[in-house]
Amino acid sequence: MKLVEKKQHVLDGPVTLESGEHLSEVTVAYETWGELNKEKNNAILVCHALTGDSHAAGRYSKDDLKPGWWDTMIGPGKGLDTDKFFVICSNILGGCMGSTGPSSIDPATGKPYGSDFPVVTIHDMVQVQARLLDLLGIEKLHCVVGGSLGGMQVLSWCKNYPERVGSGVVLASTMRHTALSIAFNEVARQSIVSDPNWQGGHYYGKTRPDIGLSVARMIGHITYLSDEAMHQKFGRRLQNGSTFSFDFDAEFQVESYLHYQGAKFVDRFDANSLLYVTKAADYFDIKEGFNENGALTRLAEQKSPFLIVSYTSDWLYPTYQNREIVSVFKRHGLDVSFCEIEASCGHDAFLLPSERLTSLLTGFLGKGA
Amino acid sequence: MKLVEKKQHVLDGPVTLESGEHLSEVTVAYETWGELNKEKNNAILVCHALTGDSHAAGRYSKDDLKPGWWDTMIGPGKGLDTDKFFVICSNILGGCMGSTGPSSIDPATGKPYGSDFPVVTIHDMVQVQARLLDLLGIEKLHCVVGGSLGGMQVLSWCKNYPERVGSGVVLASTMRHTALSIAFNEVARQSIVSDPNWQGGHYYGKTRPDIGLSVARMIGHITYLSDEAMHQKFGRRLQNGSTFSFDFDAEFQVESYLHYQGAKFVDRFDANSLLYVTKAADYFDIKEGFNENGALTRLAEQKSPFLIVSYTSDWLYPTYQNREIVSVFKRHGLDVSFCEIEASCGHDAFLLPSERLTSLLTGFLGKGA
Repeated sequence: MKLVEKKQHVLDGPVTLESGEHLSEVTVAYETWGELNKEKNNAILVCHALTGDSHAAGRYSKDDLKPGWWDTMIGPGKGLDTDKFFVICSNILGGCMGSTGPSSIDPATGKPYGSDFPVVTIHDMVQVQARLLDLLGIEKLHCVVGGSLGGMQVLSWCKNYPERVGSGVVLASTMRHTALSIAFNEVARQSIVSDPNWQGGHYYGKTRPDIGLSVARMIGHITYLSDEAMHQKFGRRLQNGSTFSFDFDAEFQVESYLHYQGAKFVDRFDANSLLYVTKAADYFDIKEGFNENGALTRLAEQKSPFLIVSYTSDWLYPTYQNREIVSVFKRHGLDVSFCEIEASCGHDAFLLPSERLTSLLTGFLGKGA
Repeated sequence: MKLVEKKQHVLDGPVTLESGEHLSEVTVAYETWGELNKEKNNAILVCHALTGDSHAAGRYSKDDLKPGWWDTMIGPGKGLDTDKFFVICSNILGGCMGSTGPSSIDPATGKPYGSDFPVVTIHDMVQVQARLLDLLGIEKLHCVVGGSLGGMQVLSWCKNYPERVGSGVVLASTMRHTALSIAFNEVARQSIVSDPNWQGGHYYGKTRPDIGLSVARMIGHITYLSDEAMHQKFGRRLQNGSTFSFDFDAEFQVESYLHYQGAKFVDRFDANSLLYVTKAADYFDIKEGFNENGALTRLAEQKSPFLIVSYTSDWLYPTYQNREIVSVFKRHGLDVSFCEIEASCGHDAFLLPSERLTSLLTGFLGKGA
């Protein structure tokens, strides 16, 4: 078994953000699978979702019990076949898994940024990815792939670096965050900043706002599942026995599940990072002016193919929002395929093992190669 | 203009709850509109939803700017025509608008119950309503009407007092709380109990857990609207100007709306009451054994007609859950009509002015009279 290693690069020079702010020093954490060929034209960039990280596949050690988050899709002979392709995944700017974010040390003060970290956008995240590819000597990607917030990054690649996009795959995503999605994110953020331990965002080295972050994660988890998925998974089953306890402890299984997800999350994620990445999602709106700089025309001219996939029970970024991407792409003459996959498990479907998606990706990448 | 007055009755003797606990003294706040006829057979009981109160219609004074919450439906010549019917609405047990709840004084201690208040169920709420009707000398209701949690109370009336139900109207409701609805309620509860000011539920006379309650209300509000309603109402419009502020203040209109709803709510509602009424909703499951004591058979025999109404964009208690009520009623030979009303505004639709609902109610009550 080949192990994977998390690498970190410091970008050359500062990064200017969409807000006009600057980050003097940006570190990018990334992992790779497979080999970059001599022509450097077999690279696939995988863009992770809201709370993901660079560890998309494989294991760090022989004793590592849990492989990366998309291990079912990345590897030899898998959907993203590492016998053919060089797959890269980097932690997003603003994250907390090795790339620069609010928990990083501000070189100007020697202390963690906290809430002094500037607001970042999806375009900023993609700019950092592009500069990582510069360092790796990769001019053009064979494909850029992502689901959810990762799909927004794929669309931002199309808009900002069309000449570097050989093809693209967008899963369960949207061209712009709707009022409903903004609403869920804002409630999650309010839950964090309402925790007295948040302390204006400067809690590093002190007690963390774990309770607020945990409730925020519970809200998120509800949106990742579906009515049907929750019914199948938990129904009204009780945690213990079959009679009500008539108190306020978690007694339905779905309550225990949410508590567990909340508690598990605070061990791996930074509360400030959740504020920043949800804000980046809320700012995302590529629908108007997608082609204002001729990006879509360029993608059509160079015949970069696209695959858009939605899931029937996804109510966070439902099929109609994915179809809107298809419409805009078609209107500009792009080669775009669309597939709605039947799934009862809600938005999370794009992360789960799927023979359907594997065969779609295999076919798509074969065609684009 | 005839003014309305909030009355309070103390029930005769203690109330034994479904949990087996007792409440030694129970006060019920209620309001009435129209006149009870000599035969005492023209009474309509309106059951309010989660955070409603007895003030369903009219005004308390000439200067009262805001009428009751269903003023569009209750009054002379309206859907519930007070020229013909005697309409009653009482605040639910566990509430905080005049009926006994966690903020009431525990006669045993002389202090507010707080979290020592026993867990109550929908059946307990209905038992208290039935005992209020006893005091008013009303044996049988011409009709019992309610939406959302109020609809659950109508179903509980059917199950527990079929002989007292002349007819029933259930709007936007369900026979049992699903895992999704329980999940939303549990996150709202966690938001409250995570507020340090909640203090184990004994915050009366001290600082209240307003922040936790406010976030809980924001979560609720998301579920009362729909993707489409939020898009129409707010879209991605900003509160001020057209450029992003690149900070974490509420800048999208939907964010300001949620903040406003949260802030407004804490002025009128008690945090502990929200814990208790959401718990009562979560416990509600009348699907199994609805007819185990022959209640549905009895309703069919006495030819009590029913009207079930759902709304197309309601994703909290969607049409399929309302249809399940229709199926069970039909299977037991009840006279039941069903209507799905086209509405883009989500679950809240049942509270909004609707000519369609007015004409449905007028027709239904005419038929049942």
